[in-house]
Amino acid sequence: MYVREIDKDIPALWMEEGEVTFIEQRLLPKKLEFYKTKAAEETALAIRDMIVRGAPAIGAAGAFGMAQGWLAKQDLKSTTQVLSESRPTAKDLFTAIDQMKKVWGEGGDVVKAAQEYTADVSEKCRKIGEYGGELVKDGMKILTHCNAGALATVDWGTALAPMRFAHRDGKNIFVWVDETRPWLQGSRLTAWELYQEEIEHAIIADNASGHYMHLGEVDLVITGADRVARNGDAANKIGTYEKAVVAKENGIPFYIAVPATTLDPGLVSGKEIPIEERAGSEVLEYAGERVANPGSEARNPVFDYTPAEYITGYITEYGIVKDISQVPDVRDTP
Amino acid sequence: MYVREIDKDIPALWMEEGEVTFIEQRLLPKKLEFYKTKAAEETALAIRDMIVRGAPAIGAAGAFGMAQGWLAKQDLKSTTQVLSESRPTAKDLFTAIDQMKKVWGEGGDVVKAAQEYTADVSEKCRKIGEYGGELVKDGMKILTHCNAGALATVDWGTALAPMRFAHRDGKNIFVWVDETRPWLQGSRLTAWELYQEEIEHAIIADNASGHYMHLGEVDLVITGADRVARNGDAANKIGTYEKAVVAKENGIPFYIAVPATTLDPGLVSGKEIPIEERAGSEVLEYAGERVANPGSEARNPVFDYTPAEYITGYITEYGIVKDISQVPDVRDTP
Repeated sequence: MYVREIDKDIPALWMEEGEVTFIEQRLLPKKLEFYKTKAAEETALAIRDMIVRGAPAIGAAGAFGMAQGWLAKQDLKSTTQVLSESRPTAKDLFTAIDQMKKVWGEGGDVVKAAQEYTADVSEKCRKIGEYGGELVKDGMKILTHCNAGALATVDWGTALAPMRFAHRDGKNIFVWVDETRPWLQGSRLTAWELYQEEIEHAIIADNASGHYMHLGEVDLVITGADRVARNGDAANKIGTYEKAVVAKENGIPFYIAVPATTLDPGLVSGKEIPIEERAGSEVLEYAGERVANPGSEARNPVFDYTPAEYITGYITEYGIVKDISQVPDVRDTP
Repeated sequence: MYVREIDKDIPALWMEEGEVTFIEQRLLPKKLEFYKTKAAEETALAIRDMIVRGAPAIGAAGAFGMAQGWLAKQDLKSTTQVLSESRPTAKDLFTAIDQMKKVWGEGGDVVKAAQEYTADVSEKCRKIGEYGGELVKDGMKILTHCNAGALATVDWGTALAPMRFAHRDGKNIFVWVDETRPWLQGSRLTAWELYQEEIEHAIIADNASGHYMHLGEVDLVITGADRVARNGDAANKIGTYEKAVVAKENGIPFYIAVPATTLDPGLVSGKEIPIEERAGSEVLEYAGERVANPGSEARNPVFDYTPAEYITGYITEYGIVKDISQVPDVRDTP
């Protein structure tokens, strides 16, 4: 992705000589800083602490973490475990770890495999942009939730890739950016990415997206996903389910943009997707200071799942499909 | 309402010897302070700056403001104007101003009329609590959005009144409190009120309410409203529309609790209700500090309207009605 401040194209994370460099996403949009890890355990912490986030980027971080463990001649089992326990919802993390585990077990070069895995993720997102760009017509107003941009996916993004392609093709588009409480991935990260590319947009409280859908001010909704079950149910950032229900009620097409690594044909439906619940303090505090009533507690599920019936289609690296079972990775799973 | 800190029952605002005292709602839940105004212009600013908020409480403030203008022998027209221009959406403000204008024009005692208006608002809310309390069954989990509590209504509340009654009747209830971005009326004010009465509750990001409805963890939704049109469409805090659509989709009863002063039979439908848009900084900043991407802008509509088809019923001081046209104030309007 192009970053104005350094006038350069960079990915969200990369690995060089055993060191993984991440854009420190917790500091965006205030400042652009890089965070470096030298060992698998540190990379696991970077995932857990959300220095990197977004399913495909977490997958790449997992692959690099495995490569770090392999380089340091650590134990395969314990490296796998520490990385697997960093965050529970993104399918990509487990896909990446499993692939690296196989290479490691077979005596292959895990660094090379991790680099290939990451380049592959990036290329899949480019294709998602190419296919999804066709959906985005000149003059459209598009709603997105959370950040499924280059920051979340190494490069290009999933949900944002079609918007990038449409914009680069000279189409006039406008993006409604849900701020995405409690972590504000929308107002901090998606807005930052759109600003870098000069794509017209406005940030709104999550509560306002239904209002604009109701007013006819939204032509298309595109979000990413963290895990998609065999039946097409998709887990994504908390609030996605609400947006999908309201989109359907208003006849607005609702698309999920995902590389096949995010598909989990082993799960029958969305009900089986584990939903991470994080500390209530993310809802109750701002910058370490209590905002909510001092005597009250919070619940903080950070994902929900959207049943397939609300999803118009899936934008994948194989093309746009109405039914997730048309994607080879799902179709060919027994 | 009972306030633990001062171990006393107080209303959200009252008038004594020409001075209006407000609970300074912008400082809650951090500290309990009182804000005093001596003139209609100051009261109009208190409304505009959200020292007092919530449709019925704004109505009472409007009545007191008119009484201040009358006491100071100001011009009727200019007093009416300055108060009318303070905030546009709440019907109660205009109802109160019109009633006081009539008394003033007829040479009556506007202070007495304002005190009666306010006592009447409080009594209506008590009745809403009494009727609505019947809907709330033992063991129920109830979702509410924004603050339609005593702070918003002089006393008792509208949406919170039925919960207060159920709790005082010894029913075990649990309340999901939407934090209500951007102003956080839920996590700051509703949570504060529930805490005062020791009603079990949890604060959630607005994005999470759909998730809990989908999981079957919500039995009933009750919100207030700022204005209800003749056909039953109801304007309320931004996000209410989304909650109503998702509630209907999940077969969860969705009630609006309103005194008849909030009804506006002069409006044919919700489309005619003016929707206030406030400064984007409310979405982009926290405590004066920029949180969102510096180059981005925000849209900040603070109300939306929910079509009557999503509303199971209206809890009013006349009882619970399925159709708003059954309420005398609407039924008897030509």
